Amino acid sequence: MTASKILLLVLDGISDRPCRELGGLTPLQAAEIPCLDRIAAEGVCGIMDTIAPGIRPGSDTSHLSLLGYDPRQCYTGRGPLEALGCGIRMEPGMIGFRGNFATIGEDGRVRDRRAGRIQNTAELTAAIQRGVDLSRLGVTFHFCPGAGHRAALALSGSGLGPNVTSNDPKKEGLPPLEFRPTTDRPEDMKTAEACTEFVRQAARILESHPVNRQRRARGEPPANLLLLRGAGVMGHFEPFEARYGISGSVIAAATLVVGIGRAVGLEHIPVEGATGSTKTNLNGKIAAAVRELERRRFVLLNIKGADEASHDGKALEKKGFIERIDRSLIPLLDLEETLLIVCGDHSTPCSIREHSADPVPVVIHGEGVRTDRVDRFDEVTCAYGGLGRIRGLSLMPIALDLINMAQKYGA
Amino acid sequence: MTASKILLLVLDGISDRPCRELGGLTPLQAAEIPCLDRIAAEGVCGIMDTIAPGIRPGSDTSHLSLLGYDPRQCYTGRGPLEALGCGIRMEPGMIGFRGNFATIGEDGRVRDRRAGRIQNTAELTAAIQRGVDLSRLGVTFHFCPGAGHRAALALSGSGLGPNVTSNDPKKEGLPPLEFRPTTDRPEDMKTAEACTEFVRQAARILESHPVNRQRRARGEPPANLLLLRGAGVMGHFEPFEARYGISGSVIAAATLVVGIGRAVGLEHIPVEGATGSTKTNLNGKIAAAVRELERRRFVLLNIKGADEASHDGKALEKKGFIERIDRSLIPLLDLEETLLIVCGDHSTPCSIREHSADPVPVVIHGEGVRTDRVDRFDEVTCAYGGLGRIRGLSLMPIALDLINMAQKYGA
Repeated sequence: MTASKILLLVLDGISDRPCRELGGLTPLQAAEIPCLDRIAAEGVCGIMDTIAPGIRPGSDTSHLSLLGYDPRQCYTGRGPLEALGCGIRMEPGMIGFRGNFATIGEDGRVRDRRAGRIQNTAELTAAIQRGVDLSRLGVTFHFCPGAGHRAALALSGSGLGPNVTSNDPKKEGLPPLEFRPTTDRPEDMKTAEACTEFVRQAARILESHPVNRQRRARGEPPANLLLLRGAGVMGHFEPFEARYGISGSVIAAATLVVGIGRAVGLEHIPVEGATGSTKTNLNGKIAAAVRELERRRFVLLNIKGADEASHDGKALEKKGFIERIDRSLIPLLDLEETLLIVCGDHSTPCSIREHSADPVPVVIHGEGVRTDRVDRFDEVTCAYGGLGRIRGLSLMPIALDLINMAQKYGA
Repeated sequence: MTASKILLLVLDGISDRPCRELGGLTPLQAAEIPCLDRIAAEGVCGIMDTIAPGIRPGSDTSHLSLLGYDPRQCYTGRGPLEALGCGIRMEPGMIGFRGNFATIGEDGRVRDRRAGRIQNTAELTAAIQRGVDLSRLGVTFHFCPGAGHRAALALSGSGLGPNVTSNDPKKEGLPPLEFRPTTDRPEDMKTAEACTEFVRQAARILESHPVNRQRRARGEPPANLLLLRGAGVMGHFEPFEARYGISGSVIAAATLVVGIGRAVGLEHIPVEGATGSTKTNLNGKIAAAVRELERRRFVLLNIKGADEASHDGKALEKKGFIERIDRSLIPLLDLEETLLIVCGDHSTPCSIREHSADPVPVVIHGEGVRTDRVDRFDEVTCAYGGLGRIRGLSLMPIALDLINMAQKYGA
């Protein structure tokens, strides 16, 4: 029976370059992954440039592409997507930022960009939302906690522009930077002024907050500064269901991926213990995806840990986590009526600890696909597959065609 | 010696998805096709998205692409191309329709959308051409018979638009629909009025025509209603010879393909017994193509039957017809000075009885091509070929380069 549902499993940063610690293999090549290999053997494989050959994707632009939304048309910066992911209801035109709680010393220099990786900022965030007042500028705002030391800010009001620099010096030991408009448009000047004022008022509230008094008493760095970055204006996204005729859910720990899902109208399904690290609750996420497929025709499931290990340069840990992922996939092997797609969103070579443009492996598995000869899921073997080399933007059209939801062009 | 001619053999709807009746193989994979396999072994193979990955092509948009004409720029609906195929001389600006002779009952409902698959409508068509008068609207028209119950209509006159709905209810037992403009532009309103008037006057002529009296007497459904659809304005097509420097012919039973060929200035070569079905005169078509190559440098040869079997969901019949095609290709194996290209125009999986976006196999055979390791012509094996995965629009440029008719870009 033709598949009628799509499970898009994105293994974040899964692909790599040859690693010395692994005898010149990639973590994916070195890993024992019987489930992924079976999916590859039964499916049709290929390699994919999530944006285009040689273009190093961010997680935001790559996920937009994988969902069939051309980032060149709809990407307006990371801030508004992070803000959506943190739970702020972003309307077109609002200006979004991602941010960190940080520690500033008495000398006016940033001592810790993550405020000792503070875990819970709910009280601090609430105090800032209550206490800061930007009405003098005609600006209202929403400030929300993210995971750990992270947070998101959204500004609304007339005449606000998105073109402002960050106050994050990016290195400890330096003073925070000034927010500056990058154009001479009054809208951008106004946003820079609002950010400056917001951070100034927030600092006063944080400095004297009981949470920080307790942190100081315990010898922990206080969360007494906000660093904001990724400014962008919220754009308009055609809803997924209107575009494709099917509705969907997103399961992800990374707020950015949650935000992208929400931007296109996917419902976020939280999973207990999903952390985005190599310690995440993999079985819980897989089970949630299987459950969602009973009521939705599309599920985006993002597993982040391999990307984290790569950013830390840990090839062995990455290989181990890939093997853990593989064991968790058993419930997906016999999904009914479902097209299962497994791919990366970008490569993150441990050798460079950053995203790279190397293509990612991709497999499409389910009724109707043209099984090829590839029986191994890795960066090299998949290049021999029946899909050839495709673009991220082609993935949703191909998948929709396989579940017979594609429109005919012509007669 | 470098080839100087191109034979483009389009096996309509040849490619498929795995078929249960064939043990999970596609009809092409299951078929014994020694000629096609030899062409693949000697040629360079690949897979091709005739439009783009995931885009489900119509036969019109795919053939335009294969001829190197971007349908996104030149496709204006199927009607004008069908009208050309039926022999109407379409000038830019004329409005074309495809149509059916149908049977309407005394209760005003469509009883048979194909009027009992009436075979010859020449007399009825001539009576309508003589008898209908649209001069009150300032409109002239050409009405021509197509194959079997089919026909085509072209309207000309100033101020006619192409945006009108069809009167075809698509299901028997329903009354015919009204022609309606889909915009509020006066041009489209005028076309809707002309269609309504044309069908009304034609019905009066058909009702009392001796051919229908005889059909009624024999207990056959009368052809007493016209259903029109596929409205489009005839566009401008740069002539093939002006664009490529070589002239060509088209050999096809499908009026649509004949019309596309004529739109770009290919000469249509009729072949006795060419029906577009699995019973077609294959040897006659191949012989005609070989003859044409003696006086032309380009021939488009379309063989339609596999697509018909697919639309009927008949995988075994499709496999059998593919084997019949293969036997007919023997005269093509030793063509001199000719680049032979064999490909599909789109996939038509028997499992869905409709076109799909799955890529089609393609092989280019002749002096100068880089023979790869592929020695089997099917959807999966060709993916391993030296062409990789290409687009339909790239095919003519590649072929022209191989016959040394490509222009250098740069110096």
